[in-house]
Amino acid sequence: MTTTTRESPTSDTRVGHPAGALTGRTPIGATLTGGDGPEVRSVDPRTGEPLEPAYRYGGAAEVARAAALADEAFDAYRATTVEQRAAFLETIASRIDELRDALVERAHAETALPVPRLTGEVGRTSGQLRLFAAELRLGVWQGARIDPARPDGTPPRADIRQRRVPLGPVAVFGASNFPLAFSVAGGDTASALAAGCPVVVKAHDAHLGTSELVGRAVQAAVAEHGLPEGVFSLLVGEGPDLGVRLVTDPRIKAVGFTGSRGAGLALARAAAARPVPIPVYAEMSSVNPVVLLPGALADRGAGLGTQFVASLTLGAGQFCTNPGLVLAVDGPGLDAFVGAASAAVAGDAGATMLTPGISRAYATGRDALAGRATVLARGASGESAACGGAALVSVDGARFAADPALQEEVFGATSLVVRCADEAELVACLRALDGQLTATVHASPADHGLAGTLLPILERKAGRILFDGWPTGVEVGHAMVHGGPFPATSDSRTTSVGSLAIDRFLRPVAYQDLPAALLPAELRDDNPEGVWRRVDGTPTR
Amino acid sequence: MTTTTRESPTSDTRVGHPAGALTGRTPIGATLTGGDGPEVRSVDPRTGEPLEPAYRYGGAAEVARAAALADEAFDAYRATTVEQRAAFLETIASRIDELRDALVERAHAETALPVPRLTGEVGRTSGQLRLFAAELRLGVWQGARIDPARPDGTPPRADIRQRRVPLGPVAVFGASNFPLAFSVAGGDTASALAAGCPVVVKAHDAHLGTSELVGRAVQAAVAEHGLPEGVFSLLVGEGPDLGVRLVTDPRIKAVGFTGSRGAGLALARAAAARPVPIPVYAEMSSVNPVVLLPGALADRGAGLGTQFVASLTLGAGQFCTNPGLVLAVDGPGLDAFVGAASAAVAGDAGATMLTPGISRAYATGRDALAGRATVLARGASGESAACGGAALVSVDGARFAADPALQEEVFGATSLVVRCADEAELVACLRALDGQLTATVHASPADHGLAGTLLPILERKAGRILFDGWPTGVEVGHAMVHGGPFPATSDSRTTSVGSLAIDRFLRPVAYQDLPAALLPAELRDDNPEGVWRRVDGTPTR
Repeated sequence: MTTTTRESPTSDTRVGHPAGALTGRTPIGATLTGGDGPEVRSVDPRTGEPLEPAYRYGGAAEVARAAALADEAFDAYRATTVEQRAAFLETIASRIDELRDALVERAHAETALPVPRLTGEVGRTSGQLRLFAAELRLGVWQGARIDPARPDGTPPRADIRQRRVPLGPVAVFGASNFPLAFSVAGGDTASALAAGCPVVVKAHDAHLGTSELVGRAVQAAVAEHGLPEGVFSLLVGEGPDLGVRLVTDPRIKAVGFTGSRGAGLALARAAAARPVPIPVYAEMSSVNPVVLLPGALADRGAGLGTQFVASLTLGAGQFCTNPGLVLAVDGPGLDAFVGAASAAVAGDAGATMLTPGISRAYATGRDALAGRATVLARGASGESAACGGAALVSVDGARFAADPALQEEVFGATSLVVRCADEAELVACLRALDGQLTATVHASPADHGLAGTLLPILERKAGRILFDGWPTGVEVGHAMVHGGPFPATSDSRTTSVGSLAIDRFLRPVAYQDLPAALLPAELRDDNPEGVWRRVDGTPTR
Repeated sequence: MTTTTRESPTSDTRVGHPAGALTGRTPIGATLTGGDGPEVRSVDPRTGEPLEPAYRYGGAAEVARAAALADEAFDAYRATTVEQRAAFLETIASRIDELRDALVERAHAETALPVPRLTGEVGRTSGQLRLFAAELRLGVWQGARIDPARPDGTPPRADIRQRRVPLGPVAVFGASNFPLAFSVAGGDTASALAAGCPVVVKAHDAHLGTSELVGRAVQAAVAEHGLPEGVFSLLVGEGPDLGVRLVTDPRIKAVGFTGSRGAGLALARAAAARPVPIPVYAEMSSVNPVVLLPGALADRGAGLGTQFVASLTLGAGQFCTNPGLVLAVDGPGLDAFVGAASAAVAGDAGATMLTPGISRAYATGRDALAGRATVLARGASGESAACGGAALVSVDGARFAADPALQEEVFGATSLVVRCADEAELVACLRALDGQLTATVHASPADHGLAGTLLPILERKAGRILFDGWPTGVEVGHAMVHGGPFPATSDSRTTSVGSLAIDRFLRPVAYQDLPAALLPAELRDDNPEGVWRRVDGTPTR
């Protein structure tokens, strides 16, 4: 039986339960709910000790209730104005900022990620919500187009107007490695809510308390803005089981996911097998190749080696954009890079990973890769219950191009240096790459000719191409792409970070000869909201 | 063994074989090729007689050759300028216009579609190619975005620029019912070529000669513009077999399809099961509901009935947007509509359908629907080898809402009138609808209040909403949407008609701190091509 406490949203989330205190229950609509499945607690990865409170897994009943509420909420929610939705997103942002200290404390206990990083991640999360509020007001996302009637044309042309409408309720799966920015109120949720889609989130077991805090903040914002309760729900449940139930619920119309390739593919398969298939935006696996060109290596090989290891070990290597692969032409510059990088890895103290399970998977992956390559250096592992020691290994280019297993992501601070005999072998290795979130090039001005010939290859492989930087760190803005060809994501046509992410949850509708009184505001002749529109193809406002 | 004649493109297509004469072979790159499979001829649907010349099915070898050429051509083709691609599309358009008489003659023999309709379709096809040339020059499709660096920010912000790049070689499956506008050089091919994607088309067996003529015109344009030969190929082959081979070739990166639900789903399944899944844009099945509101019925019920049957029987009912479903509240106005429509159907002389197979499938579908409903009227069938007689049947609203089988598309001139007891039952029927390409409302000014309450329901169901018109006839422009929720299409986020269709074959790439000399033209500070760009979010040029 499901334990549900139905109180007013105010007493649930702002008074009855102080916003920073945990209840062991999560919002389904306006209520706080616990499932009737097994108890589950997040674990402090430093000690391996379970953290209070306990949550209980939900199942079919909780999925059905959240999906039904989301479906009921959809028409009213999508009918809100741009300003109403923008203000709602800003309220969520403010609630999250207000909870900063509690969020950082709990997330630190649940993930062992450093306090400064988590403090920054709170700001990133609220900033992301505010970016989508700004994007809504900029008035481009509607995709408004007007082809005016030509009654005197041969044949006469009807009046055709186009805008984009939201897809419907969206299921979001939070990632383990960004307990705030890619989780309950992260980019998937922010972009779906901005588009006008209710959201049902499955909390990640690794940070249940952080999830509850953020979920209740969203729930409070829903109530504060008088929105239908089903605009937001947060479920706790056994991963594959609850995930597949949620993705196959007929009321769910799209899915946002960040996590492992196996879990992402399972959800994509389930979504494709529905009687009515739905889109799945799964960000999965990437080794983020870094290409070191000869001039850059000659200029600053050792310096690049030190910088590289700083990027590799950031957050215990638990970034989707972690540089897990380095490719360069052999020579003294590469020797200098490898020397400095090996020294830095060997001197690394190790770090606590997100969970004991991730730590075990990392060790397995690292050792498997090491078994296929030459080990250059290993760092200390540390003493925690989820320790993760850095490693640097190497193979030659011919070997790399011939062995797809060398491209498998090892989630953590391990990287593979590929020593190519010459530029032709470097090109062959790049052509052999799977799809990636990022590709990085380090180049001196003398390398720009070569870099220009590599760019078309890298464009076919990656969603973001960086020069003279490191891929860890993803700006949240209008121009960012955090996406890329399979297996980096399940859908290369979009991004999960940045304002373009709103496109994922919209579809176009055309209106032919609609009476003026019935036109949506963004398509009326007087353009009361001042949105950008393409009139006979030309952008205007 | 494959029979291939390798000559210069000029002698193949412009001199050696006059452009209007048929060879029984189709272009793979710069050659004209025949497969080594069984012979196949299109059939004159009026007589059932096969038409010369014979073609021969290709198979694995032809798919591999076309895909390899397309892959080889991709980098060079996508590196062409906007102006080069626009001029290429315009040349294809001119070649098709030049072939008009030969195309109309052959297409008429192969499809029995009326000569004026086919003449119009030639213009629509070339016009569509010119629309994409214009869209390229308008400079919005690139999706250019620039977030300038903020070196003094906290933290400093990198320079991030975004544009869209083509996905790669695209497989296109022509439709039977538009032998020109949705076939070899139809909307899928035009939008993919505009995006910078090479195209491999599978010709529809129902119009092989028309396909050869158009295919050779595209081949000639490729040669005339000095483009890599692999930019375009045209294959003939056994439907499911060649189709699945093409869609599962690793070099193919997206699929455009118009046809039956069964075939579309088979291709979508094959694409999803690839080691690297790819997007499939399949336009499949729609019954295109027409809602007649009480005021409109009272004003002009009989007139609407007559107009409706004209739309229903247009092209023997073989439009994706054919009005296969009418919904209204019972009453004298609906009686007048049904009376006039029944008389028009009963007086209809019948028409020849596209193929004998389509005629048989139509008869089966029509009779199955008639068996679940009350027959109001049947038209004459005519005497051809592919005859198709119109039919009008009826059920009440409660029955319709309860029986999903009543929503199945009958491809041809059969429509179902749903008599609803009241507005509530009408709303229930609309809520029960599957996804549609179009939804049409006929309303008097007095109906606009009711229409306003139905619009949000229809927006969830259809890609295009029309008032006081008929869905057959799809304007080719910037604002058109020819798409919609499943099963109308496999991907509601897009359209297969209109300039927005180019989006299907593009994906975003971000460039971080790219040296100025290496930036693509559309992202350079001086914006030499004058494209529209979002700078810190705001559109500017």
